[in-house]
Amino acid sequence: MTVPPLKKQRTHPETGNARIYEATASAPVNIAVIKYWGKRSEALMLPTNSSLSLTLDQDQLQSKTTVRVVVDADGKENDAALWLNGNREKLSGRVTALLARMRALRVAKEAKDASIPHLASKPLLIASVNNFPTAAGLASSASGLACLAFAVNAALQLELPPADISALARLGSGSACRSLFGGFVAWDMGSKPDGSDSVARQVASETHWPNMCALILVASATQKEMPSTAGMQTTVETSPLLQHRIQAVVPDRMVAIEKAIAARDFDSFAEITMRDSNQFHAVCLDTFPPIFYLNHVSHRVISLITMYNQVKSKSNGRKYTVAYTFDAGPNAVLYLLKEDVAEVLRLVNSYFPNGVDAASGSAVDEYYGLSKQFLKAGSKTVEESEKALEAEVSKGVKKFEESGGLKRIIYTTIGDGPRILGAGEAGEDVSLFTDAGVPK
Amino acid sequence: MTVPPLKKQRTHPETGNARIYEATASAPVNIAVIKYWGKRSEALMLPTNSSLSLTLDQDQLQSKTTVRVVVDADGKENDAALWLNGNREKLSGRVTALLARMRALRVAKEAKDASIPHLASKPLLIASVNNFPTAAGLASSASGLACLAFAVNAALQLELPPADISALARLGSGSACRSLFGGFVAWDMGSKPDGSDSVARQVASETHWPNMCALILVASATQKEMPSTAGMQTTVETSPLLQHRIQAVVPDRMVAIEKAIAARDFDSFAEITMRDSNQFHAVCLDTFPPIFYLNHVSHRVISLITMYNQVKSKSNGRKYTVAYTFDAGPNAVLYLLKEDVAEVLRLVNSYFPNGVDAASGSAVDEYYGLSKQFLKAGSKTVEESEKALEAEVSKGVKKFEESGGLKRIIYTTIGDGPRILGAGEAGEDVSLFTDAGVPK
Repeated sequence: MTVPPLKKQRTHPETGNARIYEATASAPVNIAVIKYWGKRSEALMLPTNSSLSLTLDQDQLQSKTTVRVVVDADGKENDAALWLNGNREKLSGRVTALLARMRALRVAKEAKDASIPHLASKPLLIASVNNFPTAAGLASSASGLACLAFAVNAALQLELPPADISALARLGSGSACRSLFGGFVAWDMGSKPDGSDSVARQVASETHWPNMCALILVASATQKEMPSTAGMQTTVETSPLLQHRIQAVVPDRMVAIEKAIAARDFDSFAEITMRDSNQFHAVCLDTFPPIFYLNHVSHRVISLITMYNQVKSKSNGRKYTVAYTFDAGPNAVLYLLKEDVAEVLRLVNSYFPNGVDAASGSAVDEYYGLSKQFLKAGSKTVEESEKALEAEVSKGVKKFEESGGLKRIIYTTIGDGPRILGAGEAGEDVSLFTDAGVPK
Repeated sequence: MTVPPLKKQRTHPETGNARIYEATASAPVNIAVIKYWGKRSEALMLPTNSSLSLTLDQDQLQSKTTVRVVVDADGKENDAALWLNGNREKLSGRVTALLARMRALRVAKEAKDASIPHLASKPLLIASVNNFPTAAGLASSASGLACLAFAVNAALQLELPPADISALARLGSGSACRSLFGGFVAWDMGSKPDGSDSVARQVASETHWPNMCALILVASATQKEMPSTAGMQTTVETSPLLQHRIQAVVPDRMVAIEKAIAARDFDSFAEITMRDSNQFHAVCLDTFPPIFYLNHVSHRVISLITMYNQVKSKSNGRKYTVAYTFDAGPNAVLYLLKEDVAEVLRLVNSYFPNGVDAASGSAVDEYYGLSKQFLKAGSKTVEESEKALEAEVSKGVKKFEESGGLKRIIYTTIGDGPRILGAGEAGEDVSLFTDAGVPK
């Protein structure tokens, strides 16, 4: 991958000099199968263990960010202004640190070559939006910070290799470093004290396992959760089990899941994924005071998938047909193969009959990348075989009879890494700013 | 403690010989603060780690068992019949093994002294009742099996020391071995291959910490739980974290909690208790497939107690005022000091306003050892200070607004070990059988 050139560079109407240095980028969400939980250095954002994630297709879920360098404005040096989903926000300490690091790289570049534009200390305007609502229950920090680092790299013409951008994104949000690549991505914890080897690396591209996909089951959360930043440090400080996980469990799992991905071995991939999700939530529970991210809806999803896998293995001979994983919240992400999506979706829908939108008679009241056609079995034969399967599954797990179990299901696939959006080329201006620097 | 003599020995109306050898005993429930979870030998019922429990007062919660040796009946040799809460039940393999071991001890005794009655192979009639309903959500196997072993020892005149009875009770149900003693009881895991040193031992008597008591918060369970016997073996087989708990965590905690108990150091006692409960449920979650015993009511109790302890420490200077612990189910057992019971009870009642019996306007719809008077603050000053406390607690944890959160609260204290019930002495026949051998 080579870093694309500056998105646009308008000419000043009077002087003829470049006036607006700007880049607009999009970046994907990633969902880990080997979980990151705990930092060995908060200052350098270095994790206590390696992790591995799948990058989800940004055609469904994405962060989009425009970074504009204001070369001829009156703004203070090294200033920056941020708009998040249209609202002006204060820059966090981490974002400030990330910008400072990237500006320092530009300073060094300008020192080497006096002919290039002086951008390093100019004010920056930053606008970022997510195309998925907060209510989708997905963390936007990974895609958002990856997108920011990627866009700043282009706007400041740093021409950094992806691994370097990944290390910079890490300073903004640990798991953001994994959103710099498409497909299957490992974040190696590294061993150097300065953290320079704690970066993400693509294990396999988004085309490697073409029938791998994801269903995100968004649970109706009733209680506010603990922010993951605070949560993970409490775990590091108080959980005796975390140390064992870090030292004795994760290293082997990293090797095993990379092997499973390379061989497209779904059974191994699924078992490691589910065990690692369970163990992440186990160390949350071993934290003092304990942290609960799984709620009763999550518990029921786990029971349903466990039972479905058991029943299904009798007919398809596979140990697992679906793998669940849960991040720092109650929503399930199911990894499965495309050929199994329709059946699994109908099963989930049948087990959560009382969604938010009870009138529609379906838990699936909103769709991202999903057609309602998915819910129709298609043929009499399929319908009958699914009825038999459901009857067997129902011996082990009862339907979720309360209302409001699931509020949304998102179907998506594995996708590519960040993109510089080609403004103008398609005749459309993708910038999130007007020419005057006002967020659109 | 010496084992009391045979409870009653009726004379045959014609021969004048003893006709009924029988003992009726009662035994207490125990609730562990260092949890037993996992066996290193299923055959010998040997645990993977030591554990420690508090024995609850059997005046509130008890199992009661009559064992009758039928010396002149037509029954088959070594036969046994069992009634549980009035219903005839099949003997489990474990109870059969326990009876076989105790009969073998009687065989040896009779071989040494030909003058004693020949009881070893006579049919046994066993009736057992619990004074707490299954709906109380308390495991009855520990008190039930302890009571059985204690009553058989008396009925067969084995005159075994308590540690030996404890080892026998263990064969019926692991944690039963701890119900053989009052007060604070450790079950040392032992190291001998035959398990003879895996027995319970009294750490401190029931009078050692006189203001220690317990509130049992019975949650409305909506889902059937996994039986603990099956659950713990799955954990042993699949949880990588359990091994670390066994080897690196529990040994230190056993030492620390014995020290806390000896010093009546509630802060240390409470912290170890809560951490160990959390860790037990963490290894359940690390089991594959995972086991959930805590439900959303349990989560809410934990949050409430965590918040209450924080707020309360500002006024009473203690780190913890209440410790929670959860066994293989959603019910909380709170250990606390007597002087704090009334306030805590009113707080819990206020946070779970919609009990099963909504009409009473109180979650506390049934009482064991509790007077409704507990719910009245008593004075204007107390009422006001509690209102202020509640207001502060409510900043961190919302009231449980669903109905059916808690269905019962049981108040009890620390009590003594099994008792042989003194029939006749008080002019009352405590036997659970009629003279004809029919369960009453």
